[in-house]
Amino acid sequence: MVVVGAGFAGLNATLALCDEPVDIALVDRDNYHGFWPLLYQVATAGLGPDDIAHPVRAIFADRHNVSVRLGTVVGIELDERQVLLDHGEVLDYDYLVVAAGSSTSDFGIPGVSEHAFPLKTLPEAVRLRNHILTAFERADADRAAVPDGLLTVVLAGGGPTGVEMAGAISELIGTNLALDFPHLDVTSARVVLVEATDRLLGGFSPRSQDEALETLRAKGVEVLLGAPLARVTASGVVLADGSEIASHTVVWTAGVRANPLADLLPGEKARNGTVVVTADLSLPGHPEVFAVGDVAAAAGRSGEPLPQLAQVAIQGGRHAARQVAARLAGKPTRPFRYHDHGIMATIGRQSAVAELPGGLKLRGSMGWAAWLAVHLVFLVGFRNRLVVLVNWAWNYLTWDRASRVILEDTSRP
Amino acid sequence: MVVVGAGFAGLNATLALCDEPVDIALVDRDNYHGFWPLLYQVATAGLGPDDIAHPVRAIFADRHNVSVRLGTVVGIELDERQVLLDHGEVLDYDYLVVAAGSSTSDFGIPGVSEHAFPLKTLPEAVRLRNHILTAFERADADRAAVPDGLLTVVLAGGGPTGVEMAGAISELIGTNLALDFPHLDVTSARVVLVEATDRLLGGFSPRSQDEALETLRAKGVEVLLGAPLARVTASGVVLADGSEIASHTVVWTAGVRANPLADLLPGEKARNGTVVVTADLSLPGHPEVFAVGDVAAAAGRSGEPLPQLAQVAIQGGRHAARQVAARLAGKPTRPFRYHDHGIMATIGRQSAVAELPGGLKLRGSMGWAAWLAVHLVFLVGFRNRLVVLVNWAWNYLTWDRASRVILEDTSRP
Repeated sequence: MVVVGAGFAGLNATLALCDEPVDIALVDRDNYHGFWPLLYQVATAGLGPDDIAHPVRAIFADRHNVSVRLGTVVGIELDERQVLLDHGEVLDYDYLVVAAGSSTSDFGIPGVSEHAFPLKTLPEAVRLRNHILTAFERADADRAAVPDGLLTVVLAGGGPTGVEMAGAISELIGTNLALDFPHLDVTSARVVLVEATDRLLGGFSPRSQDEALETLRAKGVEVLLGAPLARVTASGVVLADGSEIASHTVVWTAGVRANPLADLLPGEKARNGTVVVTADLSLPGHPEVFAVGDVAAAAGRSGEPLPQLAQVAIQGGRHAARQVAARLAGKPTRPFRYHDHGIMATIGRQSAVAELPGGLKLRGSMGWAAWLAVHLVFLVGFRNRLVVLVNWAWNYLTWDRASRVILEDTSRP
Repeated sequence: MVVVGAGFAGLNATLALCDEPVDIALVDRDNYHGFWPLLYQVATAGLGPDDIAHPVRAIFADRHNVSVRLGTVVGIELDERQVLLDHGEVLDYDYLVVAAGSSTSDFGIPGVSEHAFPLKTLPEAVRLRNHILTAFERADADRAAVPDGLLTVVLAGGGPTGVEMAGAISELIGTNLALDFPHLDVTSARVVLVEATDRLLGGFSPRSQDEALETLRAKGVEVLLGAPLARVTASGVVLADGSEIASHTVVWTAGVRANPLADLLPGEKARNGTVVVTADLSLPGHPEVFAVGDVAAAAGRSGEPLPQLAQVAIQGGRHAARQVAARLAGKPTRPFRYHDHGIMATIGRQSAVAELPGGLKLRGSMGWAAWLAVHLVFLVGFRNRLVVLVNWAWNYLTWDRASRVILEDTSRP
């Protein structure tokens, strides 16, 4: 069988199946599993890129029935039951799990793809880190003539990534860069979060939303609610009301859509291009094909669409694996039941909101402790956990963000 | 005053002067101090790039008389006592320490700059790591038609970098990649070290040289001595005797010359373009200008040219700082006296050669323990030391090299 994608969904599907009597080809375009909930830490110099990446082959090195394939899927032939890779390889399957994840969508807003920084991949995080640090270096190189907006970071989107980035960037600037650039007027730097709706953290409770808003504003973040973006330009953003914010660093965290791979599958698509699936997460008319995680439009217990969250991906991947195992054993499949383990977002040092099942809500340092624990547990690889723990302890005790290294272009010249 | 370069020489000069009543502008083209003795570990996936890089501004954050300038020096006006940076900034100085380090030289061998991988900078190490890992992925993508030389790594130069790379690459391939690619015939991979002279590790004792040779050969490295390179091509190397070795990965560790910045200074140059200096390390005719580290041709106690080593750079930087302090106090300068603390090179897991003053020589695991201790002590930044220690302990206990992550192009698209 073939699993497409080594993110939360595909990795967990493969892990849940590798003790079964199946041969699995696990395809990903990267050679690592990225722990994306901590990507914003790489972008803000709290962690190094390697800390949140674990080589996929290392995870399955002792599993001889798992063959890891590095490549991009360019075709899925449902009739021939074949997956085509960009380098020409053809993978036959009896069962297929499509777990290709999501990619950035500009929602049709002009200028986003040209001028804004996406934040979905490891190179994108390193690029953003380079860019922010270089902006401060440029400002310091000629302190008498700092261009308008050079030290202004605009975060487009008030979801978890936007909120976490806003908190982390304001801390990076307010503590580390203020010390690093003693001759620069760092107080002139702005962190602006613009959100189209009138609430941060859609999906959280009003109390958590208020907590996030208050915490960010206390950190000096300018939060603009009910402020949809009209366009992004080379010199900043223009809001729907016509007002402009000069900025050399616009981070686009607002738009997520299904990986374009979804378009290789037939049938209708749900919101954001996600694949419509049946109750057991298989493709309508193709019981041998499952779509899970961010690429799929799974439904919750009362039919509501499930959000694109790590927990949905993990549980979806495991569910698909169990259905494949059931069918191999000649048993019927079961519908997917999502178990809500809660949602959480950190808003910087010692502050987070966590909403657990049963109405338990944690805030402030309790929420932060819960956030730390959960993220360490789910990070793949003991070494990664240890190094991330060391880095976090270091950052926490010293207020340092030690990875503020401008790692230049690593491509072959 | 101005210090050019934040490597071992410039960093130590600045650290030794920052308690004196001077204002120091410290210039580097990168925003970090790189711990280059461990660069080969980044290239071979043992450490992440951030682990050996420490932000320069962090080192001097509480030193208000040190101003860190990110930029490339494009001019030195000795008469006006000015240093010109690429972004147009002009730095005036009363004293100048030039510690610009070294850069790669192709020794005029055709094809080196086009086809070989240099290994002097952090992006170069990441690029080489990407390239080696990608070669194995390419071979695995079509195992029936592995191009000739795809899995052959040729190391040009049998100095410490070549020897350390040969040991580390053979371990990376023989342990980790052999497990990562169970369906690939990894035994067909070759690591070839070509050295023009008839000895590895020139400058070490014959006994250490033999030890290095035996250890590498026991690891399966093909060591070719007395084998000067004629040229490097897109498909491999051609030796002076006309024989060819097919290779997609030629690593050039043989050639080092003074940073081209040396050419901005007047006067004759010594071997490899290094700046000729007087006994106190100042420029002839310019007692206010010092040149130290790899960029300079300092002489040892009996007039012999000192090698381009970290210890020479560290001691040279500190010496220049003391001479500036002496002149500020109206005292005469003193000649530089190099204290030989020994030389060492690791040849892989649990094996190294170390030659300490007084004739003490350590080999095997004793040499390796000494190498570990010395490198941890000299690594800048407690966090870096801790993370490197965790990574090393992990690599050692598990035989893992956890950073085998292909980090794609991080430049702005």
